[in-house]
Amino acid sequence: MSTPTIDRAELARQFRTFIDPAFVIEDDETIRPYECDGLSMYCEMPWLVVLPETVEQVQQAMRLCQEHKVPVVARGAGTGLSAGAMPYAEGVVLSLAKFNRILEIDPLARTARLQPGVRNLAISEEAAQYGLYYGPDPSSQIACTIGGNVAENSGGVHCLKYGLTVHNILSVEMVTVEGEKLVVGSDALDGCGMDMLALMTGSEGLLGIVTEVKVKLLPKPEQAQVVMAGFDSVQNAGDAVGGVIAHGIIPGGLEMMDGFAIVAAEDFAQAGYPRDAAALLLCEVDGTAEEVQEHIEQASNLFRSFGATSIRVSQSEEERALLWKGRKSAFPAVGRISPDYYCMDGTIPRRHLAYVLTEMQKMSEHYGLRVANVFHAGDGNMHPLILFDANVPGEFERTEEFGGAILAMCVNVGGCITGEHGVGVEKIRQMAIQFDDLELAQFHALKAAFDPDGLLNPGKGVPALRHCQEYRSLEHKAHTAEA
Amino acid sequence: MSTPTIDRAELARQFRTFIDPAFVIEDDETIRPYECDGLSMYCEMPWLVVLPETVEQVQQAMRLCQEHKVPVVARGAGTGLSAGAMPYAEGVVLSLAKFNRILEIDPLARTARLQPGVRNLAISEEAAQYGLYYGPDPSSQIACTIGGNVAENSGGVHCLKYGLTVHNILSVEMVTVEGEKLVVGSDALDGCGMDMLALMTGSEGLLGIVTEVKVKLLPKPEQAQVVMAGFDSVQNAGDAVGGVIAHGIIPGGLEMMDGFAIVAAEDFAQAGYPRDAAALLLCEVDGTAEEVQEHIEQASNLFRSFGATSIRVSQSEEERALLWKGRKSAFPAVGRISPDYYCMDGTIPRRHLAYVLTEMQKMSEHYGLRVANVFHAGDGNMHPLILFDANVPGEFERTEEFGGAILAMCVNVGGCITGEHGVGVEKIRQMAIQFDDLELAQFHALKAAFDPDGLLNPGKGVPALRHCQEYRSLEHKAHTAEA
Repeated sequence: MSTPTIDRAELARQFRTFIDPAFVIEDDETIRPYECDGLSMYCEMPWLVVLPETVEQVQQAMRLCQEHKVPVVARGAGTGLSAGAMPYAEGVVLSLAKFNRILEIDPLARTARLQPGVRNLAISEEAAQYGLYYGPDPSSQIACTIGGNVAENSGGVHCLKYGLTVHNILSVEMVTVEGEKLVVGSDALDGCGMDMLALMTGSEGLLGIVTEVKVKLLPKPEQAQVVMAGFDSVQNAGDAVGGVIAHGIIPGGLEMMDGFAIVAAEDFAQAGYPRDAAALLLCEVDGTAEEVQEHIEQASNLFRSFGATSIRVSQSEEERALLWKGRKSAFPAVGRISPDYYCMDGTIPRRHLAYVLTEMQKMSEHYGLRVANVFHAGDGNMHPLILFDANVPGEFERTEEFGGAILAMCVNVGGCITGEHGVGVEKIRQMAIQFDDLELAQFHALKAAFDPDGLLNPGKGVPALRHCQEYRSLEHKAHTAEA
Repeated sequence: MSTPTIDRAELARQFRTFIDPAFVIEDDETIRPYECDGLSMYCEMPWLVVLPETVEQVQQAMRLCQEHKVPVVARGAGTGLSAGAMPYAEGVVLSLAKFNRILEIDPLARTARLQPGVRNLAISEEAAQYGLYYGPDPSSQIACTIGGNVAENSGGVHCLKYGLTVHNILSVEMVTVEGEKLVVGSDALDGCGMDMLALMTGSEGLLGIVTEVKVKLLPKPEQAQVVMAGFDSVQNAGDAVGGVIAHGIIPGGLEMMDGFAIVAAEDFAQAGYPRDAAALLLCEVDGTAEEVQEHIEQASNLFRSFGATSIRVSQSEEERALLWKGRKSAFPAVGRISPDYYCMDGTIPRRHLAYVLTEMQKMSEHYGLRVANVFHAGDGNMHPLILFDANVPGEFERTEEFGGAILAMCVNVGGCITGEHGVGVEKIRQMAIQFDDLELAQFHALKAAFDPDGLLNPGKGVPALRHCQEYRSLEHKAHTAEA
């Protein structure tokens, strides 16, 4: 990373020659909302925020920035949870907010061509007229954009069955750091050449700027039903998750909540959750009527055989929505009982579910911080919510440490430091634990193949090798302190 | 590409210090079987063939070759159909044939850990005891290896529903050109960091040597049934394919054959195909008994509404096997009626099926060469078989030209020059039509990120930019000649 060879005022002046001057933002007050994304503890004021309206303007913006070595951070709706869209101090935030048009829906091919700023939910709303919808459904789907989904490879409750963003897109048009247009992927099941589409998906803005996305659409399942099962131990609930999968049922969603999360969600949403359960599973099955009936019955029997203390099967669409309402409001529910909370994201092999929850309880006591556990249990993606109060001195630092310890545990049991939120700034230290220097060097080489000067979203995603030893020793110390 | 800084004899001597001397092959007679892969018109005698037995030996082999700038071509079973495993004259063929052990099957997690030389079918045979199987089923599955499948991102009849290799693997252990071990991918739904697993899958030996593969296993479907439908025009059959997909049925396999292929297959296999049909569809549905019954009925009705002249539904496993036997023996069936044939591989958008078949007929007349069409119609992957006689002077050259024209047509209708056979040497010219210089430069940059000296499988996959203008003008000439 070199420093820009142009000053802020001159850069702004040059941007104004091809972008509507009202959308070349320089003043602190208007810039302020861009200083962070959904992970607001990491923030930074950029030099400029620009909102181009055409792909040509994006190209020109990139050429201008490359010429003067100005870092560029692309931004969708800013709902990301790993500070992947945090600005760079001497850099430009390139917002794709104005690229909000659905360009085409082809109901026969079941595809949609989208500008990157189209909201995730808007795709399904528009496709509904054809009986179709877009699969990935991150919790932020009302607000988050498809471009951001590509950058983070977003998932959601249904990704166990329907896959992540990478499994639901066909191609991406991107603008390179040199300002060239590049299309990666194709309409075919397998594009030819190297798979740059998967590489681009989840690359957190490090490789290029997404300017168009072609997604696959799915037919709405004929029917969906959910079975809720309460358990008096997390061990039993964890085993039941493995049992369902081993039995060959692939649920549309298979979610788990621990006792603390159950009570918080129930108080908030009155979904009828068993307040005394130590763990709760929500298992949704979708498909044809016969298939749903068969799988719901099998799942219910399995849950009983794993010791479920209560079972409830939704008998109507209203009841199904109500059972999900509790789960979907788990975050705001926790937000109501704590001044602040920190949502973690990590992945573990399913078989370690119970062990990880037990360990987490011990850590919670060690750090003196409460934790509520919400899990995409089916695919082992967990979202522990650490409760803290930012106004109590030292509590945020302790929260960060606790979070780091959770991620280290994920790696230790053979899991991964991110499920669907990405690395961003948040987990850059943990990347040094997840990967060795050789692997990280390979990431840097790939990054350099797209962006030799390191202008795209610097400081995110992949840690500089020179810091890795320090990161690893810090983690080691944290571990030792715990033991 | 530089030339080796070591001579052949000395290289062999050094290999013998760490690889069993019996498997460092130098003599022409023993090397001969390695001179080509399944596309035998492209062949080359390498300097040496080596068969290491351990990952450490592969690492040492790579270090030795890198030190002396010796090109390395990795080889599985050599069943590839694009000359991707064709040796390099002043290089080493690194055969993974001795890596043929199934290291672990985990029936609960539904995964298998495999050495790269394990045959595709052997995975399903071993997993059968748990009611599981491995999804991708290329025609060569008796012989082809999982390492080769990763290199080519192989598909098969069932990939419409179950995906290509990339959708069915979790992680790959590879040895880099520097001799380092690198694991790409993870057990999690989404690995963290950039998606190198997808990049590696289908990279045709250009990025590294696969030394271990972890695959997903699928539960065997409860039931499978196939409906066969004859049509008196390819237009109707093509429309029916779109109709099935648009209706929301995702068949386990959806295959199409044209009149010529039908007769050849029927003469060979006596499957009971309608010899007078212009096109035949085989549509297999799998799942629960109810689901299969429902979808078979829907598909049959759809085929009727699109003008099917005959419909037959398999009533037993034997009948199902018989109906597939014809399709599966289409290649040898054609081989019986022609001294030689050339199997092409390209992908087109489904909606252009009928147009492409009609054009192909015109080209067949233009080039004076018969063509039999066999299609993975569901995913638009076609395999035209061009019939020729290599002993007739000029006929092979005309065949190659015809093949090139077919691939150019694929690109023209928005398709892709490869479906599942890869680029290899065969389609390297067409890569210049499929992609522009910028895209190809990006591929080269990615390649260099793994293999800066270009030692891994040189001359395959991505054309040198300096040749691209020539390739494009040649294609243009071929087009003009036709018009």
